[in-house]
Amino acid sequence: MSSLRPFGAAVSFGPLTFPANSRYDTTMKISRTFIPTLREVPADAVIVSHRLMFRSGMIRKLANGLFAYLPLGLRSFRKVEQIIREEMDAIGSLEIKPTVVVPGDLWKESGRWETMGESLLRVKNRLGTEFVVSPTAEEAFTSLVRDELSSYRQLPLSLYQINTKYRDEIRPRYGVMRGREFVMKDAYSFHTDDASLDKTYQDMGRAYRRIFKRCGLSVIPVRADSGAMGGSGSEEFMVESAVGDNTLLLCKNCEYAANVEKAECRPDYSPQLSVEAARAASASTPLIEKIDTPEVKTIDELCGFLKTDARAFIKTLIYKAVNVELDLTGAPGCAGLKRRRPGPDAPEMYAEAFFAVAIRGDLDVNEIKLTAVLKAGEAALASDADVVRLTGAPVGFAGPVGLSSLPVIIDNSVTAMNDAVTGALAKDLHYRHAAYGRDFRAWMIADVRTVKAGDSCPLCGGELYEKKGNELGHIFKLGYKYTKSMNVSYLDENGKSHIPTMGCYGIGLDRTLASIIEEHYDDDGIVWPVTVAPYQAIIVPIKYEGAMKTAADNLAAELEKAGIEVLLDDRDERPGVKFKDADLTGIPWRVVAGDKNLSLSPPKVEIKRRGEKENRLVELDRAAAELAEKIRAELAEMNK
Amino acid sequence: MSSLRPFGAAVSFGPLTFPANSRYDTTMKISRTFIPTLREVPADAVIVSHRLMFRSGMIRKLANGLFAYLPLGLRSFRKVEQIIREEMDAIGSLEIKPTVVVPGDLWKESGRWETMGESLLRVKNRLGTEFVVSPTAEEAFTSLVRDELSSYRQLPLSLYQINTKYRDEIRPRYGVMRGREFVMKDAYSFHTDDASLDKTYQDMGRAYRRIFKRCGLSVIPVRADSGAMGGSGSEEFMVESAVGDNTLLLCKNCEYAANVEKAECRPDYSPQLSVEAARAASASTPLIEKIDTPEVKTIDELCGFLKTDARAFIKTLIYKAVNVELDLTGAPGCAGLKRRRPGPDAPEMYAEAFFAVAIRGDLDVNEIKLTAVLKAGEAALASDADVVRLTGAPVGFAGPVGLSSLPVIIDNSVTAMNDAVTGALAKDLHYRHAAYGRDFRAWMIADVRTVKAGDSCPLCGGELYEKKGNELGHIFKLGYKYTKSMNVSYLDENGKSHIPTMGCYGIGLDRTLASIIEEHYDDDGIVWPVTVAPYQAIIVPIKYEGAMKTAADNLAAELEKAGIEVLLDDRDERPGVKFKDADLTGIPWRVVAGDKNLSLSPPKVEIKRRGEKENRLVELDRAAAELAEKIRAELAEMNK
Repeated sequence: MSSLRPFGAAVSFGPLTFPANSRYDTTMKISRTFIPTLREVPADAVIVSHRLMFRSGMIRKLANGLFAYLPLGLRSFRKVEQIIREEMDAIGSLEIKPTVVVPGDLWKESGRWETMGESLLRVKNRLGTEFVVSPTAEEAFTSLVRDELSSYRQLPLSLYQINTKYRDEIRPRYGVMRGREFVMKDAYSFHTDDASLDKTYQDMGRAYRRIFKRCGLSVIPVRADSGAMGGSGSEEFMVESAVGDNTLLLCKNCEYAANVEKAECRPDYSPQLSVEAARAASASTPLIEKIDTPEVKTIDELCGFLKTDARAFIKTLIYKAVNVELDLTGAPGCAGLKRRRPGPDAPEMYAEAFFAVAIRGDLDVNEIKLTAVLKAGEAALASDADVVRLTGAPVGFAGPVGLSSLPVIIDNSVTAMNDAVTGALAKDLHYRHAAYGRDFRAWMIADVRTVKAGDSCPLCGGELYEKKGNELGHIFKLGYKYTKSMNVSYLDENGKSHIPTMGCYGIGLDRTLASIIEEHYDDDGIVWPVTVAPYQAIIVPIKYEGAMKTAADNLAAELEKAGIEVLLDDRDERPGVKFKDADLTGIPWRVVAGDKNLSLSPPKVEIKRRGEKENRLVELDRAAAELAEKIRAELAEMNK
Repeated sequence: MSSLRPFGAAVSFGPLTFPANSRYDTTMKISRTFIPTLREVPADAVIVSHRLMFRSGMIRKLANGLFAYLPLGLRSFRKVEQIIREEMDAIGSLEIKPTVVVPGDLWKESGRWETMGESLLRVKNRLGTEFVVSPTAEEAFTSLVRDELSSYRQLPLSLYQINTKYRDEIRPRYGVMRGREFVMKDAYSFHTDDASLDKTYQDMGRAYRRIFKRCGLSVIPVRADSGAMGGSGSEEFMVESAVGDNTLLLCKNCEYAANVEKAECRPDYSPQLSVEAARAASASTPLIEKIDTPEVKTIDELCGFLKTDARAFIKTLIYKAVNVELDLTGAPGCAGLKRRRPGPDAPEMYAEAFFAVAIRGDLDVNEIKLTAVLKAGEAALASDADVVRLTGAPVGFAGPVGLSSLPVIIDNSVTAMNDAVTGALAKDLHYRHAAYGRDFRAWMIADVRTVKAGDSCPLCGGELYEKKGNELGHIFKLGYKYTKSMNVSYLDENGKSHIPTMGCYGIGLDRTLASIIEEHYDDDGIVWPVTVAPYQAIIVPIKYEGAMKTAADNLAAELEKAGIEVLLDDRDERPGVKFKDADLTGIPWRVVAGDKNLSLSPPKVEIKRRGEKENRLVELDRAAAELAEKIRAELAEMNK
């Protein structure tokens, strides 16, 4: 009997709420629905899911980045939604529904009113009150919990919503894969300690794996950069995609997978972690000397000129960072900088600061890793004018030796360089025989290297390779960022006040739905996994008349009685048109009722699994029972 | 078996999608949920539903007019949503999901970008593109249908959404009853002809009656003013409310019910519909004459002065109307007015125009009726300066006799006046013996009278009385307003192009939920109808330990097996606290498991229906089956 309560802890609209009522003709016939399929492909649809969602009549465009789900699309969308809801409920997360439009004041409290870019859609109403059309809801949830939280006994608390979000993408594209308005499941959890946070974090990770499995998706869970959210401990759930926003580094040997924004690799050098070790290693290095390098500007030119390798060169780049939270007290060239709060409750930060970053000549600086190291809002290459002002030389001659006008950050790779070429802070001049520890030191040593295909796995040393991926979900230990800035507290068993720690956990529904199509299609259209198919079976009478009509109607009624979702193609169209639409819309099982097979003794119909080649003839009288059993089995397998 | 498909034509997450899985502990225990009940009442909560939703932990306020639904509130909210969805699906309306943020361009096409007031929340994004946070979706649906519609064979088409809306109320209040953000079910239908529109309109009317019945609501269906939407044929579904936005006129004898904005009454006079009839009726009236009325300004003063009755007086008021679509060609004083389109696709209108409105002295002009007569955006009393300019006299001396500077509209009541007193367009002067048809005529005769309690029912002549009401739903024949302005067309069977006609049908979900509470509560809290209760039964062990714990757990498990939604109060609180919370949250059935009754032979538990006084002792072994049967019966009765 427990199968009667499909919603777990969620609201059940089980058999009790809805009457078995003869007013309801449950069979959905194509003539009564609104499934505008198309043969042609819209010009702006460059990826498969966008093309197929459009062609199969799942979605239509209202404006750039704004899509309406039509009936067929909404059915699949709601199934993804329900799978997510069930898995959230199953791990004890509680659904709530805050508003989509939220007070700007909450975003000012958290500091994100200032720090979020222009992707935040801000609105001022007629009274001059400022609002945000929510792109995410840390503020709203934290505010709600703050007002109700008093005792440790109320924790842990895990809340979620499945609600409309808006991000003002400059270039919305790929259909619902990167739209402006979208629906996200976002959960937020509150805890007295890290162990409790970790438990919920692990539960969420397992729930996410189940969600994607039930949706028929192959996801790559990767350690991800924490992006704009701050904190530590995070996992992104990626799907491979040729047009993915993210570059992933995966190991050929082991399970290692990382976003390039945060990927590490096993060093191909022996880092000298202490200055003493570095000096010792350079004992036999000739003394540093300046050399003329007229008209030599690029590393390639320099390598040719000196007949050496890029690996012997120290590349030095000047970066400008904004909203830097890192403490720069005592750092070179930073005496004049003042830390300030950009908003009343935002953390203290330097509005801008410049840094030199030195790295081995064959490697690239990863700006996201650098931004994280600096605890900055953003870090980007400084302008030519700033480079000249700070290094005293044109672009191309910066180097760590003698550079005292700004903090020098050296990548781990440079600590192993005992005899290097580098810029000499003057036009057409370089140093050779520069040795770390002897000729220059660092203000900070950090890993800011961009890991590439061919680098070695940090776990096993295996070769890394690259894939493009799209993020479908992200689970993340936020820590105290919001609970601190928004003054959340609770009393422990001794009446002492503490700040709770926090996690956040998102899944993009539209993107998940589109990704299912990206993984399940063929030349003829979508091939839905049965769990998220808009209908599980389509019945196609060759003509909707006579014995074919009777057979189709009866099959539909029997299948529905067995709990199967059926679409009946009652249109007066050629069989070829009906078959093409059935393939395009991707409904998993197709039953064809034609006079020829119905006139056999006993009468038969044709059953075909979408995505498979062969048709099977099945006795009409046994068709519904057999098909229901197959669908049941497929569902059970995917949901187990 | 059909009871396994509770969603009608909607997506079914029947028993197949979700596995009976032992990972899921389905019993919701209070300690694991988030139901922050309160004893005190928030200061700004002046109506019962706001107080009780807040106190029972259903909602919390995020900002003025912005409310978050907490888990308990969301469960009931989702049930209302699902009832609406089922009834929409049952009449063949198809659910779609357009965006919440829609392009401003669509609103410019319809003309409402200009004509909607400041309650429309307009947003400009970083690229300068204008958007609207949807308050309603005529534009979005019309645009979607326009792009897909080609043939009459696609019609009729009825589409709906259940989605977030925003209206920038200046004074949001009464909790979710009048919030800024809310959820509305809005449906739009498209038709080739009026008969088809009328069929869907009637289906909607029946569906609405079922929805409200299933929600346990007593609604008053009233003919309503069409408000800002234009067109004709509309019905509002009202609930009585002391703080209602609307005044309703109801007949003591018959079923007549109308919004005061549109109410009519049986005339208490014999209207003379032709000028000839009016002249004949005034054959014995003395000739019109001017009389001095020094220092006499109000009708009361004038009645005293002349020793007559207000019913013998013609009150004349000067109105200024804006965005007037009525054709004023040839109307007095309107020669200088030009019709213009406020937006490229808006209809032609006069930006402003003035009108004199004459009505019997004891009656009031209904500005909404007047606005409709003028096809105007708004009509309001003109300023004193405008009155002086247009009538040549101070306020208080206007009258229809000799008034040629603006169009004179006379209320039906004035057509029966053969011997009246009225202003003489000069300070301290009135006319007496003024007779309609003889001494003055009208540019237009109309019904602009405000109907009041005590007036006679237009249907049966019975006495009308007033009630305050809130609108929960509205069904409305829009006609061609949007299909014309937005250029929607289809081809008929002969290949000829036509414009479809349209209906729109809304229900406010938040308001419906709050209204259920307004109708179902007592001194102790909410008394939920079982169809929309967050849980159907609450199990309260006196203490959650020993035999009481075992009995509570078993009862919960049995009830859940029977499909009943159960909340288990496992808290370590005094029984009084648990009972108070059970009453406050309004869960229909309460089962109390206490040691005393469990130690009887056979063991018993106490069952009580919320809202009833008496407890009943029931054998523990039979309690779950008996209760499930009662709940099933209640549900069946409400849903039938």
